[in-house]
Amino acid sequence: MSVTAPHGFSAAGVTAGLKSSGRDVAVLVNHGPTKHAAAVFTTNSFAAAPVLWSRQVLSDARTDAVVLNSGGANACTGPEGFQDTHATAERLAEQLSTTGADVSATDVVVCSTGLIGERLNMEALLPGVDQAVAELSPTAAGGIAAAEAIMTTDSHHKVAEVRREHFTVGGMAKGAGMLAPGMATMLAVLTTDAVISPAELDAALRKAVRVTFNRADSDGCMSTNDTVLAMASGAHPQADHAGVDLTEFENALTGVCADLTRQLINDAEGAAHTIEVRTVGAPSEADAETVSRAVARSNLFKTAIFGQDPNWGRILSAVGTTEVAFDPGAVNVAVNGVWICRGGGIGEDRSLVDLTERGVHVLIDLGAGDAEATILTNDLTHDYVHENSAYST
Amino acid sequence: MSVTAPHGFSAAGVTAGLKSSGRDVAVLVNHGPTKHAAAVFTTNSFAAAPVLWSRQVLSDARTDAVVLNSGGANACTGPEGFQDTHATAERLAEQLSTTGADVSATDVVVCSTGLIGERLNMEALLPGVDQAVAELSPTAAGGIAAAEAIMTTDSHHKVAEVRREHFTVGGMAKGAGMLAPGMATMLAVLTTDAVISPAELDAALRKAVRVTFNRADSDGCMSTNDTVLAMASGAHPQADHAGVDLTEFENALTGVCADLTRQLINDAEGAAHTIEVRTVGAPSEADAETVSRAVARSNLFKTAIFGQDPNWGRILSAVGTTEVAFDPGAVNVAVNGVWICRGGGIGEDRSLVDLTERGVHVLIDLGAGDAEATILTNDLTHDYVHENSAYST
Repeated sequence: MSVTAPHGFSAAGVTAGLKSSGRDVAVLVNHGPTKHAAAVFTTNSFAAAPVLWSRQVLSDARTDAVVLNSGGANACTGPEGFQDTHATAERLAEQLSTTGADVSATDVVVCSTGLIGERLNMEALLPGVDQAVAELSPTAAGGIAAAEAIMTTDSHHKVAEVRREHFTVGGMAKGAGMLAPGMATMLAVLTTDAVISPAELDAALRKAVRVTFNRADSDGCMSTNDTVLAMASGAHPQADHAGVDLTEFENALTGVCADLTRQLINDAEGAAHTIEVRTVGAPSEADAETVSRAVARSNLFKTAIFGQDPNWGRILSAVGTTEVAFDPGAVNVAVNGVWICRGGGIGEDRSLVDLTERGVHVLIDLGAGDAEATILTNDLTHDYVHENSAYST
Repeated sequence: MSVTAPHGFSAAGVTAGLKSSGRDVAVLVNHGPTKHAAAVFTTNSFAAAPVLWSRQVLSDARTDAVVLNSGGANACTGPEGFQDTHATAERLAEQLSTTGADVSATDVVVCSTGLIGERLNMEALLPGVDQAVAELSPTAAGGIAAAEAIMTTDSHHKVAEVRREHFTVGGMAKGAGMLAPGMATMLAVLTTDAVISPAELDAALRKAVRVTFNRADSDGCMSTNDTVLAMASGAHPQADHAGVDLTEFENALTGVCADLTRQLINDAEGAAHTIEVRTVGAPSEADAETVSRAVARSNLFKTAIFGQDPNWGRILSAVGTTEVAFDPGAVNVAVNGVWICRGGGIGEDRSLVDLTERGVHVLIDLGAGDAEATILTNDLTHDYVHENSAYST
């Protein structure tokens, strides 16, 4: 149930002292035979040093290893911050080379998460890399330790896996969107032992991310460090060397990403409800996503759900701010199965809606086409305000 | 200091019983000689019945009177709701005609604010119209009563005026954006006794609204009922009958709108800070507005300000989500005069920033041009969450 579930990977997570308590440096190594990799990075203009570095590393779609740290985002830290990332990759490459591998720093991906605008504590981080290399393990324990080391305000580590006859996909993730600001960022690493080309891996990852991580929108904020990395070793004993069944692989990868996404939203800081906003009957999938996202980003809707108030007026108000083409008089809205808005007006009795459970299902039927999309989000709570205002920087 | 400040207007505000306490029906009449009018309405697809009605009324840029009510938005109420608006306009026209005026219902603007998705209590509203007509007064008291009658969760009424040699501009407003959801909506009515053509009035109003009401973004939500109406009587004793100095008029109208906008943001429900997000050095004014609005809509930024934390990382993160073209390494950010971010990285000591006062000034210099724009917003507080979750619908 982690990044070491597929063959060909070893991992470790150690306590280097970058944050006040707990593991904070993780290393994951792909032992091959293939070292294929693909990634999706934040589109934030203020991309952090590790993002800038890792984009270069992955320009040849190949990586030997990734080093990840919590306790500092290394974002908005200028050329010095970039040098810190470079030095971290160098250190991991050196350490791995002493074990007999021939690893270049330019084949080491780096991910960081934590406070923006502060330099990393390199005196703690570099020895942490050494220790992690010494503890590398292909066991489940190694993968779990790595998943723990990337946690920030996550209440528990997040791992997932899907096993198929010819390959396995494993994964770990931390943090949902910018839910936990200073200590922000969504990081995810997917591993597989499938035989798959870099181009196929890249295509599968983009397809999977588009409908999973990119459909989670906890508080509308995007981090400077968001990274989703996929690595393929081709080491499965029953690997199909003619190449993996791409549809089967895409489904498995999407399954792992969906599982991790759901875990992230369920653990979103300060949230009392996990909300699925599904829009159907849209002219296009992009339109459906736009409508669901508009609702998911409405603070009035999110506070209403916190208050267990099935306020469909706030839902329609948010839907109506989009430029999607539909007939307002044809829109129906259900909350937890009760159609409280019909034809853009009053529907069933809103008191029939039960919002006591954590899970909330909002269904918006635009009556304007056949496309649909779902966005996962959270409610807006006192705890959210507290966590994000009282957090001392 | 209200809509009756200019010559040619009378107003009243009465208690009709649409809400649990206080005045809730206002009438404002333009006695001419001109009955010119212009308006800017919400762009929400679920525009309320009074918005749909008033758009038709103003298609000839002329109105005799406006009737406004709190205690019900008459939004998402279908054909029946539209009939209620029509009946309200009919009633006011009839009542005014009994006083000797020749008023058609199709020359009566209607504005409503309150809960979405419920029919108006017409048995209370229509007698309220009669009573308001009986109490119509050109005095300041009449204007103040009208301003009180449109309040929902506003803690006090909002009025403003600017006097010039040849004309006066007066105004009243309620509610900031969708700050107070169920009881939502921004409504504003501007009056003037200037001699001005309908086309000139329309152009001046659009210019004024663009840089005032449309630059206030308290919580990112847009109501189904937002309306800004301007009415011109041409009744000033020293009116320049060759036509008003347009620049002078635009400046005066913009001044009144800016004054009301500031009052709305200062009284935004649950807010502890009024925040001015000013972006300079942008490639275009639209870019500057985009950047300021992105920051103003960041829940992480808004909670940080509530916590008196000058978290420039959250500001850069929000700026970086836009597609505006700039060099991240050239961006400087000051909060309350302290340049805590320089060159996209660490600047002056953040502990120098004092955020104890209500007013907060964020200055973002993109270093990418000469354009600028300012968005007014509020922080995200426990009181905001409370007001918008505990409010019973």
